[in-house]
Order: sequence, then structure tokens, then C-alpha cells
Amino acid sequence: MTTENDFIRRIARRFPLRPPVEVGIGDDGAVLSCGRVMGRDQTQFAADRMVVVTDMLLDGVHFELEKISPSLAGRKAVAVNLSDLAAMACFPTAAFVSIAVPKTMRMPSGEFLDELYSGIEALTNQFNFTLAGGDTNSWNGPFAINVCLTGSPMGERPILRSGAKPGDSLFVTGPLGGSLKSGRHLTFEPRLDLARWLVELTPPNAMMDLSDGLSVDLPRMMEASNTGAILRSESIPIHDDVPESLSRPDRTQAALADGEDFELLISVNENDSNNLTRMAREAGISLYKVGKVAQQQIILIQDDSGLVHKLPGQGWIHQWK
Amino acid sequence: MTTENDFIRRIARRFPLRPPVEVGIGDDGAVLSCGRVMGRDQTQFAADRMVVVTDMLLDGVHFELEKISPSLAGRKAVAVNLSDLAAMACFPTAAFVSIAVPKTMRMPSGEFLDELYSGIEALTNQFNFTLAGGDTNSWNGPFAINVCLTGSPMGERPILRSGAKPGDSLFVTGPLGGSLKSGRHLTFEPRLDLARWLVELTPPNAMMDLSDGLSVDLPRMMEASNTGAILRSESIPIHDDVPESLSRPDRTQAALADGEDFELLISVNENDSNNLTRMAREAGISLYKVGKVAQQQIILIQDDSGLVHKLPGQGWIHQWK
Repeated sequence: MTTENDFIRRIARRFPLRPPVEVGIGDDGAVLSCGRVMGRDQTQFAADRMVVVTDMLLDGVHFELEKISPSLAGRKAVAVNLSDLAAMACFPTAAFVSIAVPKTMRMPSGEFLDELYSGIEALTNQFNFTLAGGDTNSWNGPFAINVCLTGSPMGERPILRSGAKPGDSLFVTGPLGGSLKSGRHLTFEPRLDLARWLVELTPPNAMMDLSDGLSVDLPRMMEASNTGAILRSESIPIHDDVPESLSRPDRTQAALADGEDFELLISVNENDSNNLTRMAREAGISLYKVGKVAQQQIILIQDDSGLVHKLPGQGWIHQWK
Repeated sequence: MTTENDFIRRIARRFPLRPPVEVGIGDDGAVLSCGRVMGRDQTQFAADRMVVVTDMLLDGVHFELEKISPSLAGRKAVAVNLSDLAAMACFPTAAFVSIAVPKTMRMPSGEFLDELYSGIEALTNQFNFTLAGGDTNSWNGPFAINVCLTGSPMGERPILRSGAKPGDSLFVTGPLGGSLKSGRHLTFEPRLDLARWLVELTPPNAMMDLSDGLSVDLPRMMEASNTGAILRSESIPIHDDVPESLSRPDRTQAALADGEDFELLISVNENDSNNLTRMAREAGISLYKVGKVAQQQIILIQDDSGLVHKLPGQGWIHQWK
């Protein structure tokens, strides 16, 4: 128990209280003030709504602890949740981290925890929020970590995935594919700054983050919005992490279906589309128009020769060949 | 993916939106309104603060899935968090449940999930909140579940563990000990109704829930409050789950150190103490005075013969014998 109490005290010192967290680590729960909270650049935002996101990451599924530093595991667990908050157009206010640590770990558990929380700490400092609670356990299973983040809207309200409208232009915020193989899934930058820029310029109709791949996530946004979409194959940005040696269809396939991109998928009014593209270019912000929202609830993709195909759920486009 | 989407849709149907949840299962995050929210008896409470609690429960540590129904595992995972909210004098507003399900399960995973969420559903209906998000994974490890609950203060503000004052009377809300062996830890009632009754009658100075046992948790409250305490051994209520066959010191030891009681530890002004005891008796509410808060930061226990001992951290009182 003393060890547990000591651990909690040590962690609490590393994560100072930051508004809107009033009571953080050490009580039965954390207390967050609603009402007005201070943003990272000292701007005040109305916060009559709070957003909560959560994701659980598992050794052997979302990372391989044998191959990476614990700090990267901690970083990824928080970063994927930050990506969800970016998709809701919210900045983070507090993190709650629960972990299950294997009893048989090659690394001393104190050292492991220090490194794990270093990865978390770096992101809390970068995005100006704090760790406000959590739970620490040891067991006979592999390492598991659950992160729950609270967030506060950057603009007037959170942006949902259900607001896409027929005629909207669809954008992604970066090139896609190859994330898992290259290790990019451990070091990606959650698109919080981009979300904020976008919300201040022209709030999108719908937004979500790409975790399972465009071919899986786009249908989710369209279903939530009761719409369909048509993608243009040649407009889908392919990441350098996708091997050049692959065929063109295989490269597009990778961009559509590899997953773990953690870029944003954004649906904006057609009228704002050109303006947005121009402003992004001027601001040096990465924004790629990939297609349009349609009335009919079906997902289509136009190949390089202009032919239109139905996009299968897993993005398997090899039938084109 | 279709299976995951179907699962999410099925779960969403079982957990309808309830205020203050505006957007629940299905988006990147949940949206909760701050401001005023409706309590379970239609009373409105001010909610300028939100409380967040989280606990991770693991197969083989907090329950044995080989021996119990998945619904009891789901129930316990939510109930221990409800106990934390009761200790903060907050009622629950939303639950976020992340699970890691073993790939090799003897039970079909659909059936397992149905039963798991039944245990969760029962508590959301009993205490009038909802499931508003979560994460579902499968892996090669044992079953793990993380629950994060948001809560809203029952009174003017959350009750912390740091507010105990020298002279305060210390109460517990039920007999202690034997919880793990008897299985009571799976079926206990989180003390939300009692917390509410207490807050309306006379808000306590400090409150926490007893998860690790009075001998471990009381020092935590006293440390947070910069106080000490003296317990009276003969006043510590011993649960019927503690075997009658044990010696008197062993029975007291069990009540102090078994843990998993999930009763509340409450520190109230001395002046309110007698009134509180009387009101509790009249209302048929279980409340046991176990000791007093002291200035000096040390935890003492007075044995049946009147002698005073220092209470060891783990409650090991066998030295008395």
C-alpha cells in the first residue's frame, strides 16, 4: 500500500493541476469545473458542454512492448484519444489513465511506469492539459492501458460525424497508408491545431478521425449522416510509408484500408471548399480533397480511368484489376 | 467491421440517451451538457462541476470469470465506480466502458457480451444514467474491463477526502469484512442513496469509499486532511460474512483489513454527530460511529480493554494477542 501511495504521490507531482481541473489525482474522483475554461493561448471558450472520449490499447494488438519503449505506448494511448477529441473539435482538459501491468516484466516496474508516464507527460505539456486520475493494477496478463480524456469545444459546439450534407466536399488532413508498418502509428501528431484552425475559419458540417482506414470510416460517417459519398481514386493522398514498389491499385488500397492514419476526415459545404483549399495552401496546412457527399446512401469510387465502382467495406479494390 | 458496427448499434439501442448526455454511443466521443441536469427524482441540481471516476477490473484479480456470470463482472466494474461517485456525493450521469475480450473464450463472444452488458444495464436503470461510449477489443490476454463514470454533485459541491477536521466523528455505512470470500464484492449496493440522504441532511466534512479496508483507507483520508484518528475496536461493525468461529481479534482484523467493503467512511462535525445517529436510526439507515478525528497525524486504535495501540498500515492487530 505504501508503494501504491508513493506511486500516486510521485505521479501527482508530475502532473500539476491545470484549469478546468480543480481536484486531480488522489481523491475518489477528479473535479472539473464547467462554465468557462482557458484555452492554451489564454483565449476563453464557452464550455457549456463537455466531451468524453475513451480508447483501450493492448500489448500485442496496438503495439508490441517487446519492440518499443514504454513511453511510445503511453504516448500512443493518449494520442489516439487526442485524435478523437480533434475530430470532435475539442481541446483536451483532463486525462484518466488505467493500466494493468504484468507481474512478470523484464523491466523493473518502477522504471517501466516512469517511461510510460513520460510519454503521457510530453503530450499533456504539449497540449496543456493534465492527468487527473486513473487506476494502477498488476496481474498475470499482458500490458493493457485505458485512456479516457475530457474535452472542451474549441468553437461553439462539438463537431459530430452525423452532419454531412449532400454536395459537401470531403477532405482528409494528410496522406494515408503504411502507418502500422512504418511505426508512424506511434508518433503521429493528433490534428488538434488543424481542427482549431478549421473551426475558427469555417466550422465543418461533420468530422471524424481515421483510425480504421478511409474505406471503413467514411461509410460510418455517411451512415451517421444518412448520406453516401463518391471518392476520386486519383485524389486520395498516398503516404510515403506505402512502398513505391507496389502497383498503383495496391498503393491506393493501402491508403484506403491500412488504417491507423489518425488524420481527420472532414465534410464541408461545397461553397466553402475552394476558399478552404486556398487558405490551407497559404497557411501551409495539409488538406486534400478526396471526394464529395451524395444523397444516395452508397459509397462509390471513381477509378483513374473515370469508371465508377462500389467501394467494398474493407476497401478491397483488387477487383478493378 | 460490419460485426463491430452491428455490435455498437445493438448496444446503443439498450442504452437510451438520458440527460445530461446529448450525444452518446456512436461518435468519436460523447457530449454532455454542463449547466443544470435532472436528478433521478426530477429535482434539478446545479452542475457547475463535473466529477470523473475510473477503475479497471481484471479477470483473476477482481473476479474469476470461470466461476461467475459475465453479468456480475459487468455489474461489479460499474458498481465500484458508483461507490467512488457516492463517496464524492455525486450521482452518475454517464458510463464509458472499455473491454478486452480473450479470443479464446469458451462462451460465444456474442453471448458473453450480452450478459456482460446486462449487468451494466441493470445499474444504469437503477440509478438513471446511461452508457455513453466505450471501446471493444479482442486479444490473446485475459478479460479486462475499464469503466469511467461522469457524475454531478448531489449538493452544492463534491465532498472530498481532504476535509476532515480534528474533533470530527468518523462513521462507516455498514458492517465490514469477509466481502471477497462471501462474494458480497460482486453484489454490494453502492451507497448513492445514503450519500444523498446525508448531503441533504448535513453535508459531511470528508468522505471516501472503503475499497482496500478501513485500516488502509482511513490513513489515506487522514493524510489528505492532515489529521490523525482514533478508532474504538469495539465500535467497528463486523459483517456476518466474517466467520463466527474466528477469535475476536481475528474478526476485528477481518473488518479492518479484508477490503472490498464498498461502504462509505464519513467524517462529520462533532456537533452533528448525535443528531445524525438519531436521524439515521429513525430513517432505518445503517450508520456506525467508529472513532474520532485527531490533531496528531497518527492512526490509533483503542482495544476492548481500553488500551491504545498504533494501527499498523495493513491492520495487522495480532500483536495484541
